[in-house]
Amino acid sequence: MSDVAFQDTYPADVAQCYGCGKHNEHGHQIKTYWEGEESVTRFTPEPYHTAMPGFVYGGLIASLIDCHSTGTASAAAYRAEGREMGTEPALRFVTGSLKVVYKRPTPIGVELEIRGRVQEIKGRKVVVTSELLAKGEVCATGEVVAVQMPEHLRAG
Amino acid sequence: MSDVAFQDTYPADVAQCYGCGKHNEHGHQIKTYWEGEESVTRFTPEPYHTAMPGFVYGGLIASLIDCHSTGTASAAAYRAEGREMGTEPALRFVTGSLKVVYKRPTPIGVELEIRGRVQEIKGRKVVVTSELLAKGEVCATGEVVAVQMPEHLRAG
Repeated sequence: MSDVAFQDTYPADVAQCYGCGKHNEHGHQIKTYWEGEESVTRFTPEPYHTAMPGFVYGGLIASLIDCHSTGTASAAAYRAEGREMGTEPALRFVTGSLKVVYKRPTPIGVELEIRGRVQEIKGRKVVVTSELLAKGEVCATGEVVAVQMPEHLRAG
Repeated sequence: MSDVAFQDTYPADVAQCYGCGKHNEHGHQIKTYWEGEESVTRFTPEPYHTAMPGFVYGGLIASLIDCHSTGTASAAAYRAEGREMGTEPALRFVTGSLKVVYKRPTPIGVELEIRGRVQEIKGRKVVVTSELLAKGEVCATGEVVAVQMPEHLRAG
């Protein structure tokens, strides 16, 4: 399993997300993997993803943490049920709430690493906390409450 | 003042932000104005800013609330000092923390409206709360703690 990204197991009809959908050609197409108990996403921002010159735009940081966390929630829910990711019925999550704390300016031009941990699985909710690192330093932290997507939304 | 967007008063060296900088040709270039005591941003997402088909990507919603709020913080700080926006020394803000609660899926294909209120100005911090509406319904709420940008970051 560990060589398949969480997002590459999403069914095609829910793989359009700008942040993480493999079928969104305009989007970030992030990829997240388990590394032991942590989920890890690595992403290098484009030069134009600036806040002020030299630093990464906070909205991108929030976006990365968001999709990293809903992906982690999905992977954790499958794991909790002892099922392979991507098997039906799909366990796909949306964001209930997102909190990001910006600890220091995030330098642009380097690979960012987002490392997540599952804090709680409770019914249809999964709480994921994350750290976003650049050059080994924590630049931001995130907390996402992910909620299992209602089946009726899949019809789009 | 009311016909000049907050973001159009930012000095050129801090107008590169992907979310709100008028000099970022790849970015969203949002525009925010006072409407009485509320700050208002209107923005129509692109068709590819999807979460699942039919709905807006949560990362974009977070991004819009983020830049809307730092712009509101700047405008509020100038107003508190009785100064015209854009005069030096510049009062430009970065995000200390961002919280977004997603109340319901946000439909794509319509103009979104973000309405903000200044809750508190305390030293270098400004707290801004916002509602994001589509077709008159609140789809998300935001709370941003904006922090006045340290002067040394302007050198980039």
